[in-house]
Amino acid sequence: MPGLGDISIHAVTGLPEIGIGFNLGAAIADAAEISTGDVLAISQKVVSKAEDRVIRLSDVVPGAAAEEIAMELNRDSRVIELIMAESVAIVRKDGPRGILITETHHGFVCANAGIDASNLVESESVVLLPLDSDRSARRIRGEIEAETGTRPAVIVSDSFGRAWRHGQSEVAIGCAGIAPLDDWRGLPDRSGNTLEATNIAVVDEIAAAADLVRNKTSGTPVVRLRGLERFVVPEDGSGCMAQLRTPEDDLFR
Amino acid sequence: MPGLGDISIHAVTGLPEIGIGFNLGAAIADAAEISTGDVLAISQKVVSKAEDRVIRLSDVVPGAAAEEIAMELNRDSRVIELIMAESVAIVRKDGPRGILITETHHGFVCANAGIDASNLVESESVVLLPLDSDRSARRIRGEIEAETGTRPAVIVSDSFGRAWRHGQSEVAIGCAGIAPLDDWRGLPDRSGNTLEATNIAVVDEIAAAADLVRNKTSGTPVVRLRGLERFVVPEDGSGCMAQLRTPEDDLFR
Repeated sequence: MPGLGDISIHAVTGLPEIGIGFNLGAAIADAAEISTGDVLAISQKVVSKAEDRVIRLSDVVPGAAAEEIAMELNRDSRVIELIMAESVAIVRKDGPRGILITETHHGFVCANAGIDASNLVESESVVLLPLDSDRSARRIRGEIEAETGTRPAVIVSDSFGRAWRHGQSEVAIGCAGIAPLDDWRGLPDRSGNTLEATNIAVVDEIAAAADLVRNKTSGTPVVRLRGLERFVVPEDGSGCMAQLRTPEDDLFR
Repeated sequence: MPGLGDISIHAVTGLPEIGIGFNLGAAIADAAEISTGDVLAISQKVVSKAEDRVIRLSDVVPGAAAEEIAMELNRDSRVIELIMAESVAIVRKDGPRGILITETHHGFVCANAGIDASNLVESESVVLLPLDSDRSARRIRGEIEAETGTRPAVIVSDSFGRAWRHGQSEVAIGCAGIAPLDDWRGLPDRSGNTLEATNIAVVDEIAAAADLVRNKTSGTPVVRLRGLERFVVPEDGSGCMAQLRTPEDDLFR
């Protein structure tokens, strides 16, 4: 039976250091050849930097609730203050291990509201998730189109830990020009039986695939994937919010 | 900064129908050119078929406990009997939606103990997960080596649903010749700061990447990935069991 054609995954190199207000789409278009039909997977961190979502810890004044949780978790109360400000609910809190898993204002369930809180000894600032990561993906797509006339799909991704399994896997937190779910339900399988549950989290699988060419010690924020043309659509679409379970529809919060 | 070289993902076509006792490694070696340094990602279903993990429902006699749960979930009691036999614990049960999430004897937390229980009206039988999916990966690796003299890494994968997010993503349930986790903890990042939490679930990301070339309606069980040579090791290694959280180390069961 035929497969769907080969996919190639390419780390885009030669990007400049990303600062506030930076036109990421134009920088990507400068650094790589881009076609409509490509998918660009971009690390959240550079998107957040371009959107000025970097906070100096010396500017943070923790409230009483943050002080209390920080004490319980043995963590920096300024970081806890930021995590709480980015969240609508605490999902799990583990004092002995210092773990805080929350539901962010976007609806993501992840550790530390997606704030990279490692290296606090050496670092003066932390990076928050984009305010609206689907909007970020749409904006970058628009920037690329303005520069090149092409409309690739854009995914903004971050590495999240998982229930039940050690380690992090890259997932999509924003997308434009691609549907987050590839829904086969109702279609016949090769035996003619109806697929009843097959609904593939395709943007998450693409985010994970892109991560495989990243060198974690040197920074590779942008990855280009080819061979996924069948997923790329002209309209920006629903974005990643469509793949988030509501608390009512979720057995694990 | 340099990336890590391109990756290419290729669906292996021309495999025969897989039956009991089938030498999967030899069939894969016949159908595709394979080098040491390649990663082969293989769908659980064909592995289970080769290992005779197919059960005719007419052979299953449900016990009283299975009958009771089947009633509560409005599901086939023979399938519930098989799910319970494959599991060591029920993690979540949702009567109105008919959902049963268990911990399998391997330690996987997933719906229906990984049994593909759709299409029961049309189908006479169901496919269970391999008894030991790491052993399956090692065996297939050995079969390929016997045939070709090369030692690619082998991943056995299945699509699992996730907490918090709709849709399924392909994950590794067995592996040989590759470490399940790519651990960067303790290494310096590009700024010289120490990476404290970075531990990438690389076999799961590879399983997800491989799934992107699969056509769900026509069957594409075997996918070859190139450009991941740095992850492929001579020894078979710990297998996927090393990436499973124990219940004590898990906040979500």
